[in-house]
Amino acid sequence: MSLFVPGFKGSAVESGIKHQGRLDLGLIVSDVPAVLAGVFTRNAVKAAPVLVGLDRLCKGRPYARAIIANSGNANACTGPEGVVHVHEIQGLLSRELGIDPEDIMVSSTGVIGEPLPIDRIERAIPRLVSRLSEEALDSVADAILTTDTARKTAIRHLDICGTIITIAGMAKGAGMIGPNMGPPRATILSFILSDAVVDPYWWQFIVEEAVSESFNRIIIDGDTSTNDTLLGLANGLAGNPTINEDRHGQAFRAVLEDLLQDLAHQVVRDGEGVTRCVTICIKGARNSDEADRIARTVAMSPLVKTAFFGGDPNWGRILAAAGRAGLSIDQGLIDLYFNGVKLVRGGICEGKDAEEKAREVMAAEEFSITLDLGLGKGEAQVLTSDLSVDYVRINADYRS
Amino acid sequence: MSLFVPGFKGSAVESGIKHQGRLDLGLIVSDVPAVLAGVFTRNAVKAAPVLVGLDRLCKGRPYARAIIANSGNANACTGPEGVVHVHEIQGLLSRELGIDPEDIMVSSTGVIGEPLPIDRIERAIPRLVSRLSEEALDSVADAILTTDTARKTAIRHLDICGTIITIAGMAKGAGMIGPNMGPPRATILSFILSDAVVDPYWWQFIVEEAVSESFNRIIIDGDTSTNDTLLGLANGLAGNPTINEDRHGQAFRAVLEDLLQDLAHQVVRDGEGVTRCVTICIKGARNSDEADRIARTVAMSPLVKTAFFGGDPNWGRILAAAGRAGLSIDQGLIDLYFNGVKLVRGGICEGKDAEEKAREVMAAEEFSITLDLGLGKGEAQVLTSDLSVDYVRINADYRS
Repeated sequence: MSLFVPGFKGSAVESGIKHQGRLDLGLIVSDVPAVLAGVFTRNAVKAAPVLVGLDRLCKGRPYARAIIANSGNANACTGPEGVVHVHEIQGLLSRELGIDPEDIMVSSTGVIGEPLPIDRIERAIPRLVSRLSEEALDSVADAILTTDTARKTAIRHLDICGTIITIAGMAKGAGMIGPNMGPPRATILSFILSDAVVDPYWWQFIVEEAVSESFNRIIIDGDTSTNDTLLGLANGLAGNPTINEDRHGQAFRAVLEDLLQDLAHQVVRDGEGVTRCVTICIKGARNSDEADRIARTVAMSPLVKTAFFGGDPNWGRILAAAGRAGLSIDQGLIDLYFNGVKLVRGGICEGKDAEEKAREVMAAEEFSITLDLGLGKGEAQVLTSDLSVDYVRINADYRS
Repeated sequence: MSLFVPGFKGSAVESGIKHQGRLDLGLIVSDVPAVLAGVFTRNAVKAAPVLVGLDRLCKGRPYARAIIANSGNANACTGPEGVVHVHEIQGLLSRELGIDPEDIMVSSTGVIGEPLPIDRIERAIPRLVSRLSEEALDSVADAILTTDTARKTAIRHLDICGTIITIAGMAKGAGMIGPNMGPPRATILSFILSDAVVDPYWWQFIVEEAVSESFNRIIIDGDTSTNDTLLGLANGLAGNPTINEDRHGQAFRAVLEDLLQDLAHQVVRDGEGVTRCVTICIKGARNSDEADRIARTVAMSPLVKTAFFGGDPNWGRILAAAGRAGLSIDQGLIDLYFNGVKLVRGGICEGKDAEEKAREVMAAEEFSITLDLGLGKGEAQVLTSDLSVDYVRINADYRS
């Protein structure tokens, strides 16, 4: 299904930032000023476009017209020159588009620490602008990919008092995907576009909430990036009654979360070297914070992840990972399930038959493990992947 | 150099716990009661021998006569039956040796969650006891190995007022090696033997201190085990004046730390799939706790570790990992060195020449990276490894 959102045009070109023969520069423009929401990485080391973007959001003028994004170079750890480059891109694009440079959001993804090849980007901008089209949003989704193997897009529609509004999104992921300290945490690069009329302050709130229930619940390697950015633009062209917390907010939120979860799931499925996609459910924790901490510890354990890769229902490693989350748990109360198969009861294996059934569950590309701690009602869930030989190969060779 | 400590005998046999044709059961016996120190895993999920060992230490009678240890089976997540098996081993061995069962420490390492093959162990015990010899401590070091490829032993001597005392140790490591929450934290299996006369309460204290400066500063995969155990026995046969904090404590401590660091280093060098051994030094942090947290975050980053494996001086990943430790740092103040090569100054790369020199540094099997945060005087250091294709292969196949 191709992305189409009323009032938004897209464009993508090959600017030759890193590799020849692939789209690496994308542009999204709204016909009218759109309400802006942004969620950025909480890594203390932030890429230049993230610093500029955060600065822009802090100015309290929540409108923007355009997003320009490149792959192949993260413009991170590039010092003051990196920030200058962001402003140069904004300046040139503002002249080409005839809009305020402050209304242009810039995103980058790719290698850290190399100067952005600003000449190539500047040479490409006129071509980029000339190709803007309502049908070309998909090509932007292609241009932001790095080690991803597939385009990641999703689209939903919602009826608000007889007006059909559109919410669409694109994302890139693949590596450097992990939790950060304390929500809101952004991961990956993702752009959400809607023609809905939304309350500007509610828009930022609801986007943060949706991120915390989607992108912040996926873990590939735990390495939170310097560049993680999610931007949401709502241009209001649908003309619906303004959506806010009290009016249609619940319905909109459900659709937005579903959209972001869809994108987040696509990111895990296409993670670097990923062969299996595993939902880690923790139940019976003392509270949801403790459940969350245990879920993330299990999801980041190299020994658990390599066992996923090997298709080995190595439940001992799962219990050991839960045990090292730094919380008090009682191993004698733990039950563990692979999908519906109960493999551990009260901390002890149910036997070879259960193990064989769990092994069959793991043959699938997607499955869930549920750890019931038997201590309370706290629950949490994260989506993770295995750790494969290819993950190591890809990342050992990434820059060469 | 072979292990010899006056008054200690060792023995090892093939009991057939897991594989045929390899030593898997070892015994150490002191001719006289020895002062006992123990440091155990802080994982909430503890193996049966760890539960029994902790219980023994809490009884406040810090003497023991023997350590029996098996590889091939961890006796972890084995429920109450696992604890019964530990007591059965103590009982049988106490009759064979003619000593109190409480004076026998039991350790296990290997696969989690399978019942200990107690029959095989019990059948092997008479043979084990009959072979006890002062020359056979090395064979115990062989019997505790799992995926290790080499025996790990070290020995030191110290002159205390004209009396030469011996401190020796053995260790096994390989996988499931990581930090725990809050010192003291034990990692791996290690037995320290000395003929020194030591103050019993000081002995436990000094062993904990030495562990915190050695085994607790190595990280392979961050997966703290259910079985980590370090036991120290000092039998006093050297007849030196009693060592305590005020009398020769400093000198003894330095030698013990050196010994444990030697063993810890051997563990990292022989870690699963390890091709490179990297010292991570953090300087210029606000305090040593913050330095420690950043050092561990860098050491556990899969992206940093795969770059080590690839021999790629990917300094951006190192800065990004430091940035996600959850602490406030200023990327514009960061300097980074590979051995003596300054690769990053004020958050920016020093250029292609420096990068080439850093790449040459990484060609060695051992090197250090030093991250100076420029914020204060806090320092910390950990020893880590790369993350290789073989690490994944070994752990995907471990049980099969």
